[in-house]
Amino acid sequence: MNENVSAHSGDVVIGVDFGTLSGRAVVVSVADGAELAGAVHEFEHGVVAQTLPGSDHPLAPDTALQVPEDYRAVLRHAVPKALAAAGVSPDRVVGIGTDFTACTVLPTTADGTPLCELEEFAGRPHAYPKLWKHHAAQREADDINTLAEERGEPWLSRYGGKISSEWQFAKGLQVLREDPEVYGRTERWIEAADWIVWVLCGSETRNVCTAGYKGIHQDGAWPGRDYLAALHPDFAGFAEEKLAHPLMQLGDRAGGLSAAAAALTGLPEGIAVSVGNVDAHVTAAAAQTVEPGRMLAVMGTSTCHVMNGASFAEVPGMCGAVKDGIAPGFWGYEAGQSGVGDIFGWFAESYAPAEYRGEADELGISVHDLLSRKAADQPVGGHGLVALDWHSGNRSVLVDHDLSGVLCGLTLATRPEEVYRALVESTAFGTRTILDAFAGSGVPVEEFTVAGGLKRNAFVLQIYADVLNRPLAIADSDQGPALGSAIHAAVAAGAYADIRTASAAMGGAARNAVLPDPDRAAAYDRLYAVYTELHDHFGRGGSDALHTLRTIRNESLAD
Amino acid sequence: MNENVSAHSGDVVIGVDFGTLSGRAVVVSVADGAELAGAVHEFEHGVVAQTLPGSDHPLAPDTALQVPEDYRAVLRHAVPKALAAAGVSPDRVVGIGTDFTACTVLPTTADGTPLCELEEFAGRPHAYPKLWKHHAAQREADDINTLAEERGEPWLSRYGGKISSEWQFAKGLQVLREDPEVYGRTERWIEAADWIVWVLCGSETRNVCTAGYKGIHQDGAWPGRDYLAALHPDFAGFAEEKLAHPLMQLGDRAGGLSAAAAALTGLPEGIAVSVGNVDAHVTAAAAQTVEPGRMLAVMGTSTCHVMNGASFAEVPGMCGAVKDGIAPGFWGYEAGQSGVGDIFGWFAESYAPAEYRGEADELGISVHDLLSRKAADQPVGGHGLVALDWHSGNRSVLVDHDLSGVLCGLTLATRPEEVYRALVESTAFGTRTILDAFAGSGVPVEEFTVAGGLKRNAFVLQIYADVLNRPLAIADSDQGPALGSAIHAAVAAGAYADIRTASAAMGGAARNAVLPDPDRAAAYDRLYAVYTELHDHFGRGGSDALHTLRTIRNESLAD
Repeated sequence: MNENVSAHSGDVVIGVDFGTLSGRAVVVSVADGAELAGAVHEFEHGVVAQTLPGSDHPLAPDTALQVPEDYRAVLRHAVPKALAAAGVSPDRVVGIGTDFTACTVLPTTADGTPLCELEEFAGRPHAYPKLWKHHAAQREADDINTLAEERGEPWLSRYGGKISSEWQFAKGLQVLREDPEVYGRTERWIEAADWIVWVLCGSETRNVCTAGYKGIHQDGAWPGRDYLAALHPDFAGFAEEKLAHPLMQLGDRAGGLSAAAAALTGLPEGIAVSVGNVDAHVTAAAAQTVEPGRMLAVMGTSTCHVMNGASFAEVPGMCGAVKDGIAPGFWGYEAGQSGVGDIFGWFAESYAPAEYRGEADELGISVHDLLSRKAADQPVGGHGLVALDWHSGNRSVLVDHDLSGVLCGLTLATRPEEVYRALVESTAFGTRTILDAFAGSGVPVEEFTVAGGLKRNAFVLQIYADVLNRPLAIADSDQGPALGSAIHAAVAAGAYADIRTASAAMGGAARNAVLPDPDRAAAYDRLYAVYTELHDHFGRGGSDALHTLRTIRNESLAD
Repeated sequence: MNENVSAHSGDVVIGVDFGTLSGRAVVVSVADGAELAGAVHEFEHGVVAQTLPGSDHPLAPDTALQVPEDYRAVLRHAVPKALAAAGVSPDRVVGIGTDFTACTVLPTTADGTPLCELEEFAGRPHAYPKLWKHHAAQREADDINTLAEERGEPWLSRYGGKISSEWQFAKGLQVLREDPEVYGRTERWIEAADWIVWVLCGSETRNVCTAGYKGIHQDGAWPGRDYLAALHPDFAGFAEEKLAHPLMQLGDRAGGLSAAAAALTGLPEGIAVSVGNVDAHVTAAAAQTVEPGRMLAVMGTSTCHVMNGASFAEVPGMCGAVKDGIAPGFWGYEAGQSGVGDIFGWFAESYAPAEYRGEADELGISVHDLLSRKAADQPVGGHGLVALDWHSGNRSVLVDHDLSGVLCGLTLATRPEEVYRALVESTAFGTRTILDAFAGSGVPVEEFTVAGGLKRNAFVLQIYADVLNRPLAIADSDQGPALGSAIHAAVAAGAYADIRTASAAMGGAARNAVLPDPDRAAAYDRLYAVYTELHDHFGRGGSDALHTLRTIRNESLAD
């Protein structure tokens, strides 16, 4: 297929990355993955959390919805804009690929019409897409987990023993319980990742990735009818009736671009549309981390770790282990840290004193950078601090959302930059804990590659290299997901035989971009031992203090 | 003696409180303790920590010295100024009393001349008074404690198992080790509390309070010659030669005001001078907490607790238990919290964000008050936090200066005012831990009275009342130590039979000034249980994490 590429060296593909507040289209050269141009289109309604559009009725707490038309608008505006910016004629486009936040999921009719677009349901919150960070289905998730544990459901261990409130089943059960009419009218309960592909090629497809990581599809099956009926009698057919559909492999051609979608995007009818995918997972292709043992950490406000393994192993406390979930032929492992950059942001925004704000302004740098500069030269451990990075709970390896952050070693001499540094270090220790869990389960991490917003933060990266005591690779692209989607489009278009080959040709990462310092790494070993002691004490049952504090808080605020 | 008082209803006494940076004289009516006027005189040299006066040779780290002439200047300036402000003629003054920071200790000749005032020693740091917060004798304190433990010295348990580096023996041993010539020339090693009385009445006296709390004088004896010789051969005679002197009871008349001191102060020669005393202990008389079971908490940057008990009991982790140490006839117990107001100050100054600074300025209030206002209305436990108040170590009941602060329960929603409140609460939990230790040893605290700077902080006091679940009494006087010294002067002058009687007549406190709320108290019981779990885990050997962090810090910074 290299002949194929050279035969059409002017071919381009489009990758479209659907984020939380906007979508981004990039135009990518099939031959070498060069990003020719891109365009962003903001969602008009962003995250719908207060009231539905055109209504002033307040939504329930923790609700986070979206509006499907905002997704279509990205195709309508960002795709032609990116093409124009690239100076590329539409007839050079051979395929389009997409990735989405997940689990973002919506109810539709049998023909894919979102229920919220039916007049009779426009005023019903449960007819709208539930965004990944819709957290109002925790009660449903708790019930799902309790029952699965009681029944010894075999799929539970694939998800670290916990199905998240963010995923398809919890959100679906919430609809049934709170708005049975909407539930009854739901003919398809579908990931936005698959729905957008339906918009593009005019027929429903389902991808293995979201089915596996968000839809509890394991070993060729969904959770059984008995189990679902025990959750709620009317939930018995949830999987069979609303989810079931042949699953397609990542990189497959979902179909050809429909006439309607060609009109929408300005692209040629019939070009390849690749099957749906998830933002973090699709980035593996962009960062050249498809090969087994290469862990990709998408580091931003939170961190998502994805890695392929040649075989299955039960890694304790993973978010999910899914066959073919990242690329066909491998076991895809996913882990995560629920708080990373947002912990640094929380501290820098709310706890940096006025003088620091002034000093940063004077230097023309951010408070983050000022804190980093002030903290950078201190010897490892010189602050005497260790923190637990559980401000948003622990996603891996403890899988406990009721944990909270801890800070030990404070003195009256402790400066804000020292706390900031301790928080950065705590997230690196959290990463090391995950890597240790992989290694301890026989799935060693051979290479560690960073993508996401934090890949540009030298202060953070050096601490990670020193704490992990290994070189870091850095993904080349600043638009990893969109590039990854473009790579999948190239595979779907037949330009490459598979994702591995396409990734090797079109993706890129700088290997050994950040090197550990042996002395600092040795010093961090001592601090990591303290972190591990605290991690296990507060996280594995030695102390129930953090849960007690959470209970007291919740009861106190509910009074 | 009430007849005595009425016979001289115009009599006044002077109380002089020697603080860290200044001295304060108040003129007090003998009959009722009314404070007629006061005057402050700042120490010209303040705390000598960088270089000796007239020298540019840097002093060793943790050195904190003072200049004796600064003490005399308080007598010379503040006393006549206070009298003039009160419009009181000197011939109405019947006595003068003093209190001092402790242990502040100096070497003198046999006639009381400070060695630093001898020409040949003016350039020698060890010839100067060592202020209470001189912390350069930790090595000596460690040796003193190790040896005492090895030998099973009986006095060690009277001090919670630890002699402080701040006290007479550690500081004296430091002089011997580092400047044997100054040590050899030291004929008297004397508390400033006693030295200032020497200045006033022209002859040496020693008080039971500093001898007991700072001088290891227990059961009528100092540490034995054998023990001292084992510390250092030349230290064998330290107690016998440089300390030993008959001890006088608090409230005793040390002597009459000398002609020289009369000239210095403008007071009549021959009036009563009471024996020396310590700032916290002398305040018990001012706050009417001399009776057994009435604990006085002098709450400021740190907190000192003093309480009389009718009999002796070994209360674990006390700073000291001294017979007659607060008032004759009782066992005087002292406990302490090494960080209180300075922990609030550390956080408010270094961790309040710029917006808060601006908001406080706009409202014309301090950042402390803004944080208090923002935190005041939240229900107990609504922040989900518990802190350990060990930013400066733990003085009671763990007696461990290498501990450090801990903060548990942080989330991305945690606001600065919530951390501030958790820190205030942590010091209240620390106080409750001390009260529990007293009660558990058979020395119940029947009443809790607050003096010191924090007695004006309604936010802090309400939290203390709720956490302790008991009413708080508040000392009336804002100048508790100076008033207490004046009360002791009245006793020395024979105006009252003893300190108890004088305190009842001249001191004052508002009982039941702050009342606990039963609901909040019940809620705090739950948080206190978490505090206690963390306290015991990190403080009693469950985890060595805080010590490890301290070791790592010290080694890291020493490299």
